[in-house]
Amino acid sequence: MGTSDDTLARLAAVIESRKGADPDKSYVARLLQKGPDAILKKVGEEATEVVMAAKDGDARKLVAEVADLWFHCMVALAHYGVSPADVLAELARREGLSGLDEKALRKAREREGGQV
Amino acid sequence: MGTSDDTLARLAAVIESRKGADPDKSYVARLLQKGPDAILKKVGEEATEVVMAAKDGDARKLVAEVADLWFHCMVALAHYGVSPADVLAELARREGLSGLDEKALRKAREREGGQV
Amino acid sequence: MGTSDDTLARLAAVIESRKGADPDKSYVARLLQKGPDAILKKVGEEATEVVMAAKDGDARKLVAEVADLWFHCMVALAHYGVSPADVLAELARREGLSGLDEKALRKAREREGGQV
Amino acid sequence: MGTSDDTLARLAAVIESRKGADPDKSYVARLLQKGPDAILKKVGEEATEVVMAAKDGDARKLVAEVADLWFHCMVALAHYGVSPADVLAELARREGLSGLDEKALRKAREREGGQV
Repeated sequence: MGTSDDTLARLAAVIESRKGADPDKSYVARLLQKGPDAILKKVGEEATEVVMAAKDGDARKLVAEVADLWFHCMVALAHYGVSPADVLAELARREGLSGLDEKALRKAREREGGQV
Repeated sequence: MGTSDDTLARLAAVIESRKGADPDKSYVARLLQKGPDAILKKVGEEATEVVMAAKDGDARKLVAEVADLWFHCMVALAHYGVSPADVLAELARREGLSGLDEKALRKAREREGGQV
Repeated sequence: MGTSDDTLARLAAVIESRKGADPDKSYVARLLQKGPDAILKKVGEEATEVVMAAKDGDARKLVAEVADLWFHCMVALAHYGVSPADVLAELARREGLSGLDEKALRKAREREGGQV
Repeated sequence: MGTSDDTLARLAAVIESRKGADPDKSYVARLLQKGPDAILKKVGEEATEVVMAAKDGDARKLVAEVADLWFHCMVALAHYGVSPADVLAELARREGLSGLDEKALRKAREREGGQV
C-alpha cells in the first residue's frame, strides 16, 4: 500500500470517473445520477451509523463506518466540484497543524462569550 | 505542503498528544475530557453543517465543513484507540480501490432484494 | 393537564409569540433571530442525542431527548410558517391511521424494487 | 378529525399493535423486527431530510418530513417501552409551558458560562 495521499487521491479519481457512467454498473454512478439530496441523505445516515458504532464501543465497526462516511463525503465533494485534496489543504492550512487546536479553542471561547 | 498522509498522520498525532493535556489550553483536550457523547454530538452537528453547506451550493463552505466533520471523526477515532490510517486502510482494502464501487453496488442490490 | 393537542398547540403559540421578542430574555427568540441554519443545526444535534440516549437504553433520557428534538422541530416549523397541527394532520391524513403503515410498506417495497 | 391527542395516541396504538406482527404485511413490524439500530438509522436519515426540506424553503415538504421524523421517533419510543404521551408530558412538565423557554435560556447561558 502507498501513502494515504494515494488512497484518497485514487479514490477521488475513481469517483470522478463515475460521473456519467452506467448507473446499472456502478453504485457511485447511480448515486451521482440521483443528485445531491440522495448523496446528502447518505451522509446523514452514515454519520448516524458512526455514532451508533461508537456507542457500541466497537472500534473495528467505527473504522468501517467512518470509512463509509468519508466515502460518501467524497461523493458529495465530487458533485460540487471539489475534492479531498481541498479538505486536506483546509486541515493543513488552519495556521499550521498545531494552530488548528488553538483556533478551535478560540472559536469555542467566542461561542461561550455570546453565541450559544 | 507534504502529502495528505503527512496531513492526516500529523493531525492524528496532535490529537493523540492532547489526551490528558490541559483542557483550558486545548479544544481537543477539553473535548476528549468531556468524553465520547460530547465528541459524537459534534460529529452529528458537523454532519448537519455539511448537509446545509451543500444545500447552499457553497463549495468552499462545504470543504470547510467536511474538514470540521473529518476532524471530529478523528477525535472520535482517537478516543476509541484507532486512527485515520485505519480508515484509509479500510478504504484501500475494499478489494482494491476499483472494487469498492462494485462492493457498494452489490450491497445496494442485496438491499433492494429484501432488506431495506 | 389537558390533551396533547393543548400541549402542542399551546407550545406552538408560545414559540409564535417569541418572534421578534427580546433575544436576551428568551431562548426561542434568540434562536429565531439567528435564523434557520442555527435552528436546523439544533435539529441535527438533538437527533444525534436521541440516537445516543436510545443506544444507552435509557428510556427516560430518550423521552427527554425526543422532547428536545420535537421542540426544535417546532421552532423550525414556526420559522417556515407552518405548525405542529399541520404535522399531525399529515400523520392523520395518510389514508387514515391504519393506512399509514401500509403506505410505508408500499414505499419500502418500491424502494427495494429499484430505487435505493 | 379529532384532537391531536387522538392522532398521536391512536398512531402509538397502531405501532404498538405491530410488535410481533407479520413483517411481510407491515413496515412497522419489519422495522421493529430488525431492531433498534435500523429504527435509529431511520431517525438520523429523516432528520437529515427535515434539514434538506427546510433548506429548500419548501414548507409543505418540511411538514411531511417532520411527520416522517416524528413517526420514526414513535417507533423508537415503542421499542423502548415509552410513548408520545410521555414526550408530551415532558414538554408540558417543564415548569409549565411558559417556563420551557426560560429553562432553555438558562441552559444556554450556563453553557456559555463554561460548558460548550
